[in-house]
Amino acid sequence: MQLTRAADYAVRMMIQLATLPPGTRTNRAALAASCEIPEPFVGKILQSLSRAGLISSHRGVHGGFVLSEATDAVSILHIVEAVEGPTLLNICIKPGDTCNRKFWCPAHPVWLEAQQAMTAVLRRATLASLAASSKQGGSSWTSL
Amino acid sequence: MQLTRAADYAVRMMIQLATLPPGTRTNRAALAASCEIPEPFVGKILQSLSRAGLISSHRGVHGGFVLSEATDAVSILHIVEAVEGPTLLNICIKPGDTCNRKFWCPAHPVWLEAQQAMTAVLRRATLASLAASSKQGGSSWTSL
Repeated sequence: MQLTRAADYAVRMMIQLATLPPGTRTNRAALAASCEIPEPFVGKILQSLSRAGLISSHRGVHGGFVLSEATDAVSILHIVEAVEGPTLLNICIKPGDTCNRKFWCPAHPVWLEAQQAMTAVLRRATLASLAASSKQGGSSWTSL
Repeated sequence: MQLTRAADYAVRMMIQLATLPPGTRTNRAALAASCEIPEPFVGKILQSLSRAGLISSHRGVHGGFVLSEATDAVSILHIVEAVEGPTLLNICIKPGDTCNRKFWCPAHPVWLEAQQAMTAVLRRATLASLAASSKQGGSSWTSL
């Protein structure tokens, strides 16, 4: 029940992009260095973020990667799910015939409620709030 | 960010044990059948639950497995952590030198809050409440 390295790295990279002046393009090597991520890993994560529409890439001398959306429209949950797919704390939460016990199993509603509690926090944490917190030293983020 | 199969199976088995009259012993084959778990898997999970002190085993003709604790003293979180170890939504939550960014990274407090929200739900869900819900048909569990 642990976040993948790729999702953690994706969040780092998106916060880094969000702290730059709007429209600033940055490249793979710069992201790898500032986010402390192995460069080959950066390319794969950029692909996932791009596919999800969270960043766009531009070619050329002044090319690079840039956020596609306003920072207050993107949450940590968006970023995590762009990399990991839909959050499923347990397989029974996935719609459809994923577990034949889900309609009577007393644990099923617990998994569902636990997932909702976790994703609510990740949904409230926008890139805008985290980038602001980053500029202030990283300690001021709160969902309250 | 998904529960392991072993933890899901452990929760099924503990609920099954909790629905039996107090002190009733049951064996591996019966647990495998009632919980729909492959029998070799059952043995490994019983070892984890036993090591964590959640069940005890008794040898002999009338031997078998039995809960060690009162059902209202055992939560879903206890069971999950008996199998998976301490819950760590991200590696930075682990105490110590697990990520050199944790003291200023704006995502760190978000991971911590998300984990706390999730584990609070799992901690409130006791075996007693789930076993009662199971006897009533599985739909009455609520942490409210």
